[in-house]
Amino acid sequence: MSATLPQVQQLVASAFAEGLPTSPTTEPQLAGALHHVLANPGSLVRATLAFQLSSAFGLPNQTATALATGLEYMHTASLLFDDMPSMDDAQERRSDFCVHVLFGEAACTLAALAFVNRGYALLWQAMSQKPDRQGEAVQQIEKCLGLEGMLTGQSRDLHHSSSWTARDVFMVSMGKTVALIRLTLVLPALLGHASPCQLHSLHQLGVYWGLSYQILDDLKDVCDVRESTGKTIQRDAALGRPNIALVEGAFHCIKRVSRLLRMSDAVIGDLIQSNSQIRFLAKTQQRLQSELSRFQPETLSACA
Amino acid sequence: MSATLPQVQQLVASAFAEGLPTSPTTEPQLAGALHHVLANPGSLVRATLAFQLSSAFGLPNQTATALATGLEYMHTASLLFDDMPSMDDAQERRSDFCVHVLFGEAACTLAALAFVNRGYALLWQAMSQKPDRQGEAVQQIEKCLGLEGMLTGQSRDLHHSSSWTARDVFMVSMGKTVALIRLTLVLPALLGHASPCQLHSLHQLGVYWGLSYQILDDLKDVCDVRESTGKTIQRDAALGRPNIALVEGAFHCIKRVSRLLRMSDAVIGDLIQSNSQIRFLAKTQQRLQSELSRFQPETLSACA
Repeated sequence: MSATLPQVQQLVASAFAEGLPTSPTTEPQLAGALHHVLANPGSLVRATLAFQLSSAFGLPNQTATALATGLEYMHTASLLFDDMPSMDDAQERRSDFCVHVLFGEAACTLAALAFVNRGYALLWQAMSQKPDRQGEAVQQIEKCLGLEGMLTGQSRDLHHSSSWTARDVFMVSMGKTVALIRLTLVLPALLGHASPCQLHSLHQLGVYWGLSYQILDDLKDVCDVRESTGKTIQRDAALGRPNIALVEGAFHCIKRVSRLLRMSDAVIGDLIQSNSQIRFLAKTQQRLQSELSRFQPETLSACA
Repeated sequence: MSATLPQVQQLVASAFAEGLPTSPTTEPQLAGALHHVLANPGSLVRATLAFQLSSAFGLPNQTATALATGLEYMHTASLLFDDMPSMDDAQERRSDFCVHVLFGEAACTLAALAFVNRGYALLWQAMSQKPDRQGEAVQQIEKCLGLEGMLTGQSRDLHHSSSWTARDVFMVSMGKTVALIRLTLVLPALLGHASPCQLHSLHQLGVYWGLSYQILDDLKDVCDVRESTGKTIQRDAALGRPNIALVEGAFHCIKRVSRLLRMSDAVIGDLIQSNSQIRFLAKTQQRLQSELSRFQPETLSACA
């Protein structure tokens, strides 16, 4: 019997917390930064999804855990870098001060690099179990984390001279948000010998979910929703950063997310028909749907 | 017949320049930073050594090139990070302004990450050719580039409250300089199925050379030698950074390097006896020896 969602969540939370142990020889400031991040894991959405997909495609628990933790560490590193003064200059993350505020920029940079280094080691550990899929897996990882993916996405986010169009904003999202969500969906399936058709569907789902997630995040930055996001809000307007809600207005964004989630629904239906173990995807979809439902007309009136 | 040193140098220089191609979709500021670094490769000592060792241990040219470029890209990334304002706050590198000065800290960070990402992909490409050595190779790479190696080394360099002792300085050097030189020597031999005895010798040589290299670098920072180092000099005293020449004085440092180079000589002798293809190590040793000979009594009188 496969693990329940709470079981998976507990498992990936432990793996996240314990996957990058420091030693007495680790320099104390760097160790402090790492302990802080490891103790504040966030929602672990990527780790949970990667673990569940790995299990659904028959990968053993050890490989599933390595993939889940490796991908989550890459995400963690990207947040540490993004919050730095030279990038988003954020002060808060996960309802606490950012790592660069608490431990300084140097320790934040080195902590982020420790997550990157451990992340690659864990992904390699997973890939080494599937020699016939290594070549393609390495390509996907490089494409997602490198120049064609997250790095150009983040760079476009920061270096933009004129006003933003919807197309520009989506180009940024494709790199910043979609790339890693897509890798989270595709990599476990790839190593688990998913069919080309399944891989194509997961690739599409990564785009739909990644864009939905980014639009909802943009809405949260712009709108003063009741619950705290745990992050500095209304930064995008202040910094001239891409935010689709600022470009198109909140009402239009909500329509976009609704459309994207309808398209995701269709893809998820196909995937579940091909492998009933992937039913859990419907739950993630429900969470996005309920995020969307927070943006009601009365909330939107409070938008910036 | 194996390639001559100039042939190897030309080969690794081309591989360095062409190993991280940008595309029209790469964000221009990031592309600019990358082009600048790729056009100013430095001495490529690590790439040259890795290529020569790979060939000596029978690895094909493609694997040798991937290892050489991958290791050099990791070194390149570490320099980009080290020069940042939150770290060494250097202004000059390779007789030009540093990347963070020319292109900003954000583009410098993202360029460094592009080198890291490509570096890991190239190392993985090399390792995938030797499945039986992958596990050990991944461990060595993680150890050298991660918390136990370069990251704690750099962090100790920056976060130190009291005055430096010789032991502190060498602890930093073991992480900052020795770790990557040792990996450069050990990784090609490991993938080329070197004997445990050869691996042990190369490991030792990495320590002797790495420390020699660092002490010579410290001497150059302190002493106003005639030729330009292409870097900002006399920064260590200004920033309170570890510098063995500041702790022990230049004369004592020269004695240390002489002793380390005598020990290297013995190890190289053993290695050449076990594999005559490794004769080229004697040339690198000669270069260190001639670096040392620049520090004559008349030069030392100009030391800070």
